[in-house]
Amino acid sequence: MTSQSLAPVLDHVDATLDTALERLMALLRIASISTDPAYKHACDQAADWMVQDLRSLGFTAQKHPTTGHPMVVAKDQGAGGLHVLFYGHYDVQPVDPLNLWHRDPFDPAIEETPAGTVIRGRGAADDKGQLMTFVEACRAWKAVHGSLPVRVSMFFEGEEESGSPSLVPYMKDHASDLKADIALICDTGMFDPQTPAITTALRGLAKLELEITGPDKDLHSGMYGGAAINPAHVLARILADLHDDTGRVTLNGFYDGVPELTNAQAEQWDALGFDAAGFLGGVGLSVPAGEQNRSVLEMIWSRPTCEINGMNSGYTGAGFKTVLPSKASAKVSFRLVGTQDPDAILRAFDAHVQARLPADCSYEILDAEGAGATTMPIDHPAFEAARQALSDEWPRPAAFIGCGGSIPIAGYFQTLLGMDSMLIGFGRDDDALHSPNEKYDLEAFHKGIRSWVRILDALSRV
Amino acid sequence: MTSQSLAPVLDHVDATLDTALERLMALLRIASISTDPAYKHACDQAADWMVQDLRSLGFTAQKHPTTGHPMVVAKDQGAGGLHVLFYGHYDVQPVDPLNLWHRDPFDPAIEETPAGTVIRGRGAADDKGQLMTFVEACRAWKAVHGSLPVRVSMFFEGEEESGSPSLVPYMKDHASDLKADIALICDTGMFDPQTPAITTALRGLAKLELEITGPDKDLHSGMYGGAAINPAHVLARILADLHDDTGRVTLNGFYDGVPELTNAQAEQWDALGFDAAGFLGGVGLSVPAGEQNRSVLEMIWSRPTCEINGMNSGYTGAGFKTVLPSKASAKVSFRLVGTQDPDAILRAFDAHVQARLPADCSYEILDAEGAGATTMPIDHPAFEAARQALSDEWPRPAAFIGCGGSIPIAGYFQTLLGMDSMLIGFGRDDDALHSPNEKYDLEAFHKGIRSWVRILDALSRV
Repeated sequence: MTSQSLAPVLDHVDATLDTALERLMALLRIASISTDPAYKHACDQAADWMVQDLRSLGFTAQKHPTTGHPMVVAKDQGAGGLHVLFYGHYDVQPVDPLNLWHRDPFDPAIEETPAGTVIRGRGAADDKGQLMTFVEACRAWKAVHGSLPVRVSMFFEGEEESGSPSLVPYMKDHASDLKADIALICDTGMFDPQTPAITTALRGLAKLELEITGPDKDLHSGMYGGAAINPAHVLARILADLHDDTGRVTLNGFYDGVPELTNAQAEQWDALGFDAAGFLGGVGLSVPAGEQNRSVLEMIWSRPTCEINGMNSGYTGAGFKTVLPSKASAKVSFRLVGTQDPDAILRAFDAHVQARLPADCSYEILDAEGAGATTMPIDHPAFEAARQALSDEWPRPAAFIGCGGSIPIAGYFQTLLGMDSMLIGFGRDDDALHSPNEKYDLEAFHKGIRSWVRILDALSRV
Repeated sequence: MTSQSLAPVLDHVDATLDTALERLMALLRIASISTDPAYKHACDQAADWMVQDLRSLGFTAQKHPTTGHPMVVAKDQGAGGLHVLFYGHYDVQPVDPLNLWHRDPFDPAIEETPAGTVIRGRGAADDKGQLMTFVEACRAWKAVHGSLPVRVSMFFEGEEESGSPSLVPYMKDHASDLKADIALICDTGMFDPQTPAITTALRGLAKLELEITGPDKDLHSGMYGGAAINPAHVLARILADLHDDTGRVTLNGFYDGVPELTNAQAEQWDALGFDAAGFLGGVGLSVPAGEQNRSVLEMIWSRPTCEINGMNSGYTGAGFKTVLPSKASAKVSFRLVGTQDPDAILRAFDAHVQARLPADCSYEILDAEGAGATTMPIDHPAFEAARQALSDEWPRPAAFIGCGGSIPIAGYFQTLLGMDSMLIGFGRDDDALHSPNEKYDLEAFHKGIRSWVRILDALSRV
C-alpha cells in the first residue's frame, strides 16, 4: 500500500537528479579528513555546509562544538506521528596512497565505467553519498508537499573515521535532544545490486594484543638455543590452541549466549541464494574454513569468530638473523553474536594464556576492549514497512540480513538512548571504501533517494 | 714439558706489549666494514696493512683479489715439521646504532673499566684483536730466535661478517696452496676468564623461511572472518607442532645421527663446574627450557634444536586493524650435531608443513640451506699439546668444549681441505661482539699472544 502523495515525490526526484548531484559534488569537494589535524578546518566547513543545506530545507539546524569535530543536529516537525532520527557522518577517510587514484580524490566527477555510471571521489559512498540520499528524499517531500510525512531529526558526526571520540560523551549529554522512536542509519550496503537489505544483526567485537616475554633481551640462538625459552614457540602454541579440529573456539564459555538461527531466519537466508563459491572465489578460496556444518552466511553473519589479526616476533626483515627473540606478540580479535559477553571472553582468553604459560615467561594483555553484538527486533512494524517500501523500489524483495562487521553507533542508540535502528544503505561490495578510487553508483544514489522517499511514506502509516 | 727456547720469547712479548698494541690500534683504525659497499676501499686497505705487516715479519705475503674483498695469504717455512694454517678475518661488523657507542668505533683506545683494562673499538675482539695475538706470537719468536718453531701459513679473509661469498670458491681454487697439517682458528672464546678452551664441537645450522598464503589479499575480518582460512592460525599450528611436550623436536628422523655424550666428555664437562643458574639468570631466566633430563651444557653444546627466529603476519603496527591476513611467515632454524643431515631435516620440515596444510592454503619455503655439525678428533696429538700449553699460561687447565654456534670455516677446512681445526680464542662473553662498545680485554690480548707462543713451541714437538 502506498499513499497517493508518493508518486509526485518520486517524479520530482527523477526530474531534479542533476541538482541533487551538484549538491553532493559540492560536499565531496570539501576534504573533511577527520583523522588528520591538517584538515580540521575542512571538517568544520563540511559541518557548516550541512547546517546551511538543512536550513535551506526548512530544518532548524545547529552546529555543536565538541573537543574534536562538531556535531550537526537538525529537526523538522513534519506531519508528526512517528519520530525518526537519521544518522550519518560528514567526515571521510584519508586518501593515501594518492598515486593509486586516477583522479584528485576531492575533485569528484561522474564517470562512465563498464559496470555503469559512478560518482568518483573520496566520500562518494562513505558516507556523504549515502547520507545525501536521505537529505534529498526530505527535500523532494518538502518541494512537492511542503512538509515531511513524519517527524524527522538528523544527527551527523565528523569523527566516524577517527574512532568517534566525542560521540558517546555528546550522546550522553544530549540524550533527550536526540531521542526519537527509531533511528535510521545509512552506512551499510545492499545484499547485491538487485536486492536491497535492512541489516538487523551486527556482530560485536572484542580485541586485544597479547605480548609474551621470555628472556630479557634478544639472544643468539647458537649460544642459548635449546636452553632458553623461546616466546615465539609459546605464542604459537597459545594461538594454535584457540581452535579445536572442528573449527570451534576453545575458550571456556565462549559459546554462552550464541543463539541458533531461527527457522524463519534460516529460510529467509536460504532464499537469498547467496553465492558462497563466488564469495570465497573472489579472494582466492574455495572451502569454507570455519565451524563444520555451518553455511557461509551463518559463519559471517551469525556465528562468533576468533581471528589472529597480526603476529610479530624476532627478526622479520630480509635475510636471516639467528636471534632467539625476547618477545612475541599477536593481535587477536573476536566477532561476537547474540548475548556473548565481551568481558567474559576477554577473561577466558586471559585464563587460556595463563594455563599455557611455561616457567620464565610473562605476558601482558594490552588494549583489551569489547562491545557486544547488536540485534534489532524486527517485530517493530517499522521494519516490515521499510522492507515493503524497499521491495517496491528495487528488482528483488528486500532482505533482513546480518553483517559480519561492527557498527558501534547502532549499539549506542540501543544502550544510551533506548532506541532501535534500521540500517539501510545502498553501497555495493566494489565501492572501494577506505581505498583509492572510491565510488558510489549513480543508480545507488538515485534509487537510494527514491527508496527513502518511499520509506518516509511507509513510516507515516505505522 | 717446554723447551728452553720458550722463556725468552715470553719475556720478549711482555717487554714489547706496547708496540704490539700500537700495531693493533693501527689496524683497528681502518673501518673495514665488509657488508657496506661504501667501505670497500677500507677493506682493501686492511688487506694491504696485513700484507705489509706480515712481510715485515719475513713472511711471503700476497693479497689475492676475489669478486668481493681480497684474501691475504702468507707463508713462512719456519723450522719445518708440522705445518699449521692460521685463519682469521680482517673485516668487521657495521657500527649501527652509532649513538650507543661512547666513542668513535674507529678511534680505538685503551680504557680502564671496573672489570679491568680493555681495548675499545669495532673489531677489537672480532676478529682483529684475536688474529693479532697469533701474528704477534710469530713476531716474538722471530725477534728472539730468528725463525718459527713450526712451518706457518696464514689465511685472512675480508668477508666473514658478510656471509663469506668468496670463501668456498677461493678455497676450492687454491686448495693445494692452503692445505696444511692442521688449521688454527682464533675466532672463539674462553670457557670463562680463568679457563682457556679449545672448541672441538661446533653445531651445524639449517635454516629456512616458511610463508603460508591463504586468501589472495588481506581481508576485513568482519566481512570474511569465520569463513575464510586465516594463514596466521595455520602457521601457529605448524610451529606449535614442531616440539612435543617434553621439548623434543617432532620432525620425522630429526634425531638420526645425534650421538650421546661419551662418559669421558660428560665427566670433563661436569668438571667445568658450569654455572647454569648464572648463565640463565644473566638473561632473566631460571629454568632450562629444552629437552627434559639434559644438562644446560648438553642443551647448548651437544643437542640439536629447532628455534623460531622470526614471525610475521597481518598488522603489527600501533593500534589495531581487524585485518584477516593473506600471508603469515616464520624464519626457523635448526642447530645440528653429530652426523645429522641438514638436507634430510629440511625435507622433514617440508613434510611436516604439507601434513598440516588445510585446503586453500599454499606454502613456500624460501632461502633453505644448511651445513652439518663439525666435530674435531681430539685424539690428534696437536690437541693435547695445545691444551697443555694453554694450561701452562692460564690459572685453570684448558678444557675441550662445545660451541652452540656455527663457524662454517672449520667445516670447510674439513670437507674441502681434509684438515682438522683447533679453535682457540681468548674472547669473553661480555666482549659485545657485533654490538656497540665492542672491547677486547688487554689481558686477553697479552696472554693470548703468550698462549700462541707456547702453542707454537708445543706443536714443534708433536
